[in-house]
Amino acid sequence: MIEKATRVNKALDDAVSLREPLKVHEAMRYSLLAGGKRVRPVLCLAACELVGGAESMAMPAACAVEMIHTMSLIHDDLPCMDNDDLRRGKPTNHKVFGEDVAVLAGDALLAFAFEHIAVSTAGVSPARIVRAIGELAKSIGSEGLVAGQVVDINSEGLSDVGLERLEFIHLHKTAALLEGAVVLGAILGGGCDEDVEKLRKFARYIGLLFQVVDDILDVTKSSQELGKTAGKDLVADKVTYPKLLGIEKSKEFAQKLNSDAQDQLSGFDSNKSAPLIALANYIAYRQN
Amino acid sequence: MIEKATRVNKALDDAVSLREPLKVHEAMRYSLLAGGKRVRPVLCLAACELVGGAESMAMPAACAVEMIHTMSLIHDDLPCMDNDDLRRGKPTNHKVFGEDVAVLAGDALLAFAFEHIAVSTAGVSPARIVRAIGELAKSIGSEGLVAGQVVDINSEGLSDVGLERLEFIHLHKTAALLEGAVVLGAILGGGCDEDVEKLRKFARYIGLLFQVVDDILDVTKSSQELGKTAGKDLVADKVTYPKLLGIEKSKEFAQKLNSDAQDQLSGFDSNKSAPLIALANYIAYRQN
Repeated sequence: MIEKATRVNKALDDAVSLREPLKVHEAMRYSLLAGGKRVRPVLCLAACELVGGAESMAMPAACAVEMIHTMSLIHDDLPCMDNDDLRRGKPTNHKVFGEDVAVLAGDALLAFAFEHIAVSTAGVSPARIVRAIGELAKSIGSEGLVAGQVVDINSEGLSDVGLERLEFIHLHKTAALLEGAVVLGAILGGGCDEDVEKLRKFARYIGLLFQVVDDILDVTKSSQELGKTAGKDLVADKVTYPKLLGIEKSKEFAQKLNSDAQDQLSGFDSNKSAPLIALANYIAYRQN
Repeated sequence: MIEKATRVNKALDDAVSLREPLKVHEAMRYSLLAGGKRVRPVLCLAACELVGGAESMAMPAACAVEMIHTMSLIHDDLPCMDNDDLRRGKPTNHKVFGEDVAVLAGDALLAFAFEHIAVSTAGVSPARIVRAIGELAKSIGSEGLVAGQVVDINSEGLSDVGLERLEFIHLHKTAALLEGAVVLGAILGGGCDEDVEKLRKFARYIGLLFQVVDDILDVTKSSQELGKTAGKDLVADKVTYPKLLGIEKSKEFAQKLNSDAQDQLSGFDSNKSAPLIALANYIAYRQN
């Protein structure tokens, strides 16, 4: 897994090289190469290999998913959104490059993600590349990531946000792109429709799991341990799983999601599914 | 041309329907359906037909280009960018929906543009669709539209911006997406590489022409005539063609660009190239 993440880091560094205009490429690289955990690209590559593909077939898509994740963080941190100063232990993009460049660097990363898949994917039929691009775009847009962010924003300060709305937010804000990562890997690796749909379910469970764990860490860890501002959900009076269910029930819910996710992999060769099981456990038991 | 624009408007209305979450779709539709001139999509459709394709083959791409153009306007109007209150005669997106939703509506339009081409293009080989997506993405990103915007921002207040830098800005900020529109139409319509490259040159000339005319209109027309704030280049102390060359020389330059553009079309059937020639003349002689 760590080797995969290292190869992803190298591929990202190569894909977004420092070139003119320097300022926007510096801003893109600043956030893209800030040492994230690369969960999404590694998931993408592991899904590709699970269905019998070679890692190289999904590497551009894996990088694309990380570019989009980075874009969403840059835009999310803007003063008009979450107004965050700290991300991955460093000042946020707009703090370093200004808000205007941060908006544009995000836009450029979003566009480049699609360029990179379209131009650099090798050894895969164009029909599968088109299908992958459609899936990725859907996972980002107004029925994916953006839908989650908008409903999240609209829910701030509301007193009647229940579990259903919270789940909608997380299924879109967090799970959609994880789903995109896994589904892209499965499509580009040559998976049949049944495999793609099983992996889609797996991704939705771990997507929700990712967020439940995030909510728990926000109230149980310090900013230093997290590398980002801790306790901000409480400060923003945001609805979270710990707030609705309590810490213990939230932890139980996380365990159930992890187990439901792993059930989806039971039909695959256990040697080949081991990396995805390890990733699910990593998401469940991570400490930051 | 007007019939083509009408069909584009209908296709855009259908593509971005009003659905949940309402707020982001309202924001997307507000700017997308605000009655722009649809120059880019009509160029895309006309290029497709010039190389022998049917209009329907390029309609999703034509809509995608307009979605991206709209995204760039929404983000460009933000307080941290140009801080504009008026666009196409109406309050700008962030004035109506708030800055956060405006950022997200732009992101969603950008993502949906790629989804729409990938999912809705019919009657075209997947290989051509992949190539078109790569071209479109490149025209937006850090070597296209965004490059132009960043260099434009960096040039504000500089006293030594010359013609070369001004041309870089406009070739990227304006011409790149017009080039994308035309090249996408040519690729999806089945054009050979030679046709695609001729049309690419045509698009770059009219892209620059578009901006020279825009600069001229900014100093010769009122806000009411333009449907957007007039004279803002002067207020922002921006370098423009009229400022560097004077109004008369700028008008001569515009005429030369129009003529160079139309030269690129001389090898095509004159019946089929008539719409693109009409569009070039429209861009050259428009009054707003």
